[in-house]
Amino acid sequence: MTDDAKTELIERQRSPLNLESPLPALTDSFLTPNNLFYVRNHFSIPEISAADWQLRVEGAVERPQTIAYDQLRQWPGQELTVTLECAGNHRAVLRPKAKGVAWERGAVSTARWAGIPLHEVLNACGVTSKAVDVIFVGSDAGIVPDEPKQPPAGTQFSYSIPVERALRGNVLLAYEMNGEELPQEHGFPLRAIVPGCFGMASAKWLKSIVVSDSPFRGYFNTLDYAVWHSDAQNVKHRVALGEMPPKSMINSPGHLDLVPVNGHFAIKGSAWGGDAPIVRVEVSTDEGKSWRDAQFIGDAVPHAWRFWQFAWPAPRLRGATVILARAIDADGRMQASAHDPNNGPYVIDHSLPLKVYVRG
Amino acid sequence: MTDDAKTELIERQRSPLNLESPLPALTDSFLTPNNLFYVRNHFSIPEISAADWQLRVEGAVERPQTIAYDQLRQWPGQELTVTLECAGNHRAVLRPKAKGVAWERGAVSTARWAGIPLHEVLNACGVTSKAVDVIFVGSDAGIVPDEPKQPPAGTQFSYSIPVERALRGNVLLAYEMNGEELPQEHGFPLRAIVPGCFGMASAKWLKSIVVSDSPFRGYFNTLDYAVWHSDAQNVKHRVALGEMPPKSMINSPGHLDLVPVNGHFAIKGSAWGGDAPIVRVEVSTDEGKSWRDAQFIGDAVPHAWRFWQFAWPAPRLRGATVILARAIDADGRMQASAHDPNNGPYVIDHSLPLKVYVRG
Repeated sequence: MTDDAKTELIERQRSPLNLESPLPALTDSFLTPNNLFYVRNHFSIPEISAADWQLRVEGAVERPQTIAYDQLRQWPGQELTVTLECAGNHRAVLRPKAKGVAWERGAVSTARWAGIPLHEVLNACGVTSKAVDVIFVGSDAGIVPDEPKQPPAGTQFSYSIPVERALRGNVLLAYEMNGEELPQEHGFPLRAIVPGCFGMASAKWLKSIVVSDSPFRGYFNTLDYAVWHSDAQNVKHRVALGEMPPKSMINSPGHLDLVPVNGHFAIKGSAWGGDAPIVRVEVSTDEGKSWRDAQFIGDAVPHAWRFWQFAWPAPRLRGATVILARAIDADGRMQASAHDPNNGPYVIDHSLPLKVYVRG
Repeated sequence: MTDDAKTELIERQRSPLNLESPLPALTDSFLTPNNLFYVRNHFSIPEISAADWQLRVEGAVERPQTIAYDQLRQWPGQELTVTLECAGNHRAVLRPKAKGVAWERGAVSTARWAGIPLHEVLNACGVTSKAVDVIFVGSDAGIVPDEPKQPPAGTQFSYSIPVERALRGNVLLAYEMNGEELPQEHGFPLRAIVPGCFGMASAKWLKSIVVSDSPFRGYFNTLDYAVWHSDAQNVKHRVALGEMPPKSMINSPGHLDLVPVNGHFAIKGSAWGGDAPIVRVEVSTDEGKSWRDAQFIGDAVPHAWRFWQFAWPAPRLRGATVILARAIDADGRMQASAHDPNNGPYVIDHSLPLKVYVRG
């Protein structure tokens, strides 16, 4: 494999187009370059001319508004560095094989986004006290493959977040990505950026924002990006995905790599999560029997991944061993040790065992 | 076809067992005999011994209770005649062919049920002010065929109704059907009977009743028995099925039957609906161009179907024609003229055109 080939997006699905980031994009720089940022599509990529486009804000608001692209760019903007991860990242590790795009590890990336704070737009429209959910409606629409239960007239992408999150102040309506105009495949002219939530909430190619006075039960919030929660009586409820749990990933060494005996070997990785920042990453080099703290590289950036490393003192025994990492957030939540079957093909957030060979 | 063959249930699915009522069971008597009442199962039929069984009532109640079968039979009972219809009845007419059991016209039947009023049980337990939904949890469980999104540990049948409906006074916990002990395939020892709602709400083999303080989003309320509703902004929401719309059915003549010219010919049928009683049935013998009132046979019984007939004065012209019927309820709701694609494979409630040949 040439260096060029290693630094291209990896195709996981042709139609709709779904591309994951190659390993160098996950390790070499804190911000993922636009051309290596993972691409998640549900339908064909819309071609939108900024001159013809406008954003409609309506529903449970006192003053519905229609905002043209030029007006939007004149609004005082804000910048935010945010890691996005697809809720199906790491799906390829699941056994039995799960339905959906077979993402390996590269459906996660980080960029610096510029845009308008959503709460300012909503406050300008006057959200009513009846508001429950804020629905992002995209311009992308079509037929979901193999889904007999989709809405009949074609499924327009839409996803909601609770109104409390929408008004929290850190949700952006973004028109720039890493200092460039938002690329077409990342949602030009305008996309949502919802820090701390899985990527589906950061809807692309926004067409309208609908404030809903009832809990939104659109296709993507109920049939697709939803998981099962058991209540106190062990009855299972279908719940839309939102906040990401704490997750870490070992980027080096790789699975089945050789590790030198008696040296100091650096295990490197990244970690990210939901609203609470990641405050600790622990590493085990003995299949999970004991855990030690890894060191963070650089300062914490809210809502962005943290790179970390662990100096493995001296692997003294030749042979195979299993290394693991786990992230802990400021609320004390620890990364899971196994996939929760209630999550089905989503939230593959558990520590993945990585086998390495210690060699002389 | 012998008379015997005509008066047996018709198998539409072997496993799980799904049987529809033959035409004589829909026309010959107001109450459908137990052995000809349609049978709808989602899983294998549980075998339950009344001595070992008990009903648990819990959740958002002040005094959770466990009720044994003997206690339940000592409670002052009530009788109610109720028509049940499967939400997928008439699915076989849909084009393109819809997923699910290919019911023709016989997934509807009427019986006289005896049991305990649900609101008395709930009032005895003290429903809290936080209650939103009342969930019927059945003893039947298993794997739903071809459904990757089902809960992981096997799907226990459960369905909810809004707490307002549960407390309305006409919902029964039934242990008798047409004067006999509830047959095993109809839910022994105890089932719900929810008048005015599609059959899935009348859960069988009740194990527990859970009062929920949040809108219930179980598998059958979200992924299965749910349809799409458009809001004011044309965003589609997934909504669980409940009340039946008004519906009529022509039982005689049959499709492609011969009708004598210049005679008086009786078109016969039945009609049923939701909470509002059916107050009118109209018949068209000219493909829907003009409509005239049919006459009801017998008095109205709340929550039960009404039989009707229409004296077609004198079909004077030989040849093919199309006859139609439509029901109207006390709220002025009229039976639909076409299947609403938002309803997918459910609520096939529109007037079905029936072609007949007028012959000398």
